[in-house]
Amino acid sequence: MSKLVIVGTVAFDAIETPFGKTDKILGGAATFIGLAASQFNIDPAIVSIIGGDFPQDYLDLLSNRNINISGIELVPQGKTFFWSGKYHNDMNSRDTLTTELNVLADFRPVVPKNYRDAEIVMLGNLHPLTQMSVLDQMDRKPKLAVLDTMNFWMDNALSDLHEVMKRIDVITINDDEARQLTGEYSLVVAARRIHDMGPKYVVIKKGEHGALLFHDDNVFYAPALPLEEVFDPTGAGDTFAGGFVGYLADTGDTSFENMKNAVIYGSTLASFCVEKFGAERMLNLSNAEIHKRLLQFKQLTQFEIELS
Amino acid sequence: MSKLVIVGTVAFDAIETPFGKTDKILGGAATFIGLAASQFNIDPAIVSIIGGDFPQDYLDLLSNRNINISGIELVPQGKTFFWSGKYHNDMNSRDTLTTELNVLADFRPVVPKNYRDAEIVMLGNLHPLTQMSVLDQMDRKPKLAVLDTMNFWMDNALSDLHEVMKRIDVITINDDEARQLTGEYSLVVAARRIHDMGPKYVVIKKGEHGALLFHDDNVFYAPALPLEEVFDPTGAGDTFAGGFVGYLADTGDTSFENMKNAVIYGSTLASFCVEKFGAERMLNLSNAEIHKRLLQFKQLTQFEIELS
Repeated sequence: MSKLVIVGTVAFDAIETPFGKTDKILGGAATFIGLAASQFNIDPAIVSIIGGDFPQDYLDLLSNRNINISGIELVPQGKTFFWSGKYHNDMNSRDTLTTELNVLADFRPVVPKNYRDAEIVMLGNLHPLTQMSVLDQMDRKPKLAVLDTMNFWMDNALSDLHEVMKRIDVITINDDEARQLTGEYSLVVAARRIHDMGPKYVVIKKGEHGALLFHDDNVFYAPALPLEEVFDPTGAGDTFAGGFVGYLADTGDTSFENMKNAVIYGSTLASFCVEKFGAERMLNLSNAEIHKRLLQFKQLTQFEIELS
Repeated sequence: MSKLVIVGTVAFDAIETPFGKTDKILGGAATFIGLAASQFNIDPAIVSIIGGDFPQDYLDLLSNRNINISGIELVPQGKTFFWSGKYHNDMNSRDTLTTELNVLADFRPVVPKNYRDAEIVMLGNLHPLTQMSVLDQMDRKPKLAVLDTMNFWMDNALSDLHEVMKRIDVITINDDEARQLTGEYSLVVAARRIHDMGPKYVVIKKGEHGALLFHDDNVFYAPALPLEEVFDPTGAGDTFAGGFVGYLADTGDTSFENMKNAVIYGSTLASFCVEKFGAERMLNLSNAEIHKRLLQFKQLTQFEIELS
């Protein structure tokens, strides 16, 4: 089975939406990425850090889904990273209420020895130098390195971000962040500028408007499934990334044509993620449900114009 | 050949964008709808009104594209409808600078006798009672009546709009307008409410984010082609509608499956419209260019996940 290394936060989230609010629940980028990737027949490992307050039950949830957790460092005297936020009525914007870095402040990721030959590495949103240190630990340049980032690092560690971008193959980034990083309004032009910064493949995430995959002059567009109700968008972007890398690891095919399928899988899994608070929906998701929703994506996008 | 009746404005537009500005040029909803529909092997007729200031050259442009203009009333002493607007830097919003109704204030559309048996009627954006009067003149209920409208009529003639909506099959409407009309934020829920108001098919236009086609529980999504540069969005929505009805008239098939193709044709033609000021690009568009762009739409959206 293909190995997949995932680095990112394993955290507590507290979420408030127009539909309700939660206490501290399971969250973190690596959690969402891992849960999505674990839908595939692969061998994923999470590299992260937690405090003594992190429940064994949550670790068991990950292990039970065949996610290797030997790279999750436990700091018994420390506290787990905690984020809380409140979504506005349109569910497209949110205010961060709390960010407690806690053990994350001193996170030095260590990739378990038996995962240093993984062909695919998913660098979840973290300081660019932390992401880079994971690439440094691999036995060789992985077949595919995928990086997610956000505007915070553009504001606070831009030159480090540029350095790590030179060493990766795929970047996933929001539309507004792509515009910030390049100063270009057109996403087509922004993608080309980002391509020039390093990554051969650029995925621009547009939330409820779907995602665009760029490679040279090729573009592929995956819509988000039109939903009656978005209950909680937390983790949707990471779930998208987890579905994307999980599918690529499973198929072993990193061509542009196969990345189209990977983007569709990412969108499909993200469409489940937003149906319940946090990771709840991703913990109770059957193959039959995924299969049914992939069919919906086909009906949503496929047409039959014959072109000679 | 299938007859298509198009009612709407034939007008002068003056447009200002970040790329430049125009004097009074050919514009109007029926103009854009007609030029798009004329790409198909059909017999379209425009029902509209113009003043003595409207150049014969512009009428010839329409006639030369096999658009029947016998339903365009000329008021020699009157002035043609004039709109001018200025687009903001993001090209997604605009300010209207001038609206001179002129001859449009007294427009009483008369459908030419030999087009009263048309199977498809496209009611471009006008007062709902003006749209209704066209339906009243048809020999029988057309096979397909398509209506475009805007927020202005929701604010000023809502009950009339509700009346005409009961008599049409397809509505095309912007996302914000769908939300205004229904009070629902979710476009899925909004489409269902609009469906309950009359039209069996609901097309929600999302500008650069594409368009959604709803019918009962079915949804189809056509993206807008990602463009390096949107030069002038004027007429894109009408061009979309013209491509939609033109394709349906040409194929004679108004099933949901075929409407998917019609939406793709509409998006394809709209992607040309925005490349130049006003209708300029639509007047110089070859079949080969359309064919090539349809291929781009296929590459943009089609994927190969095998589902049993």
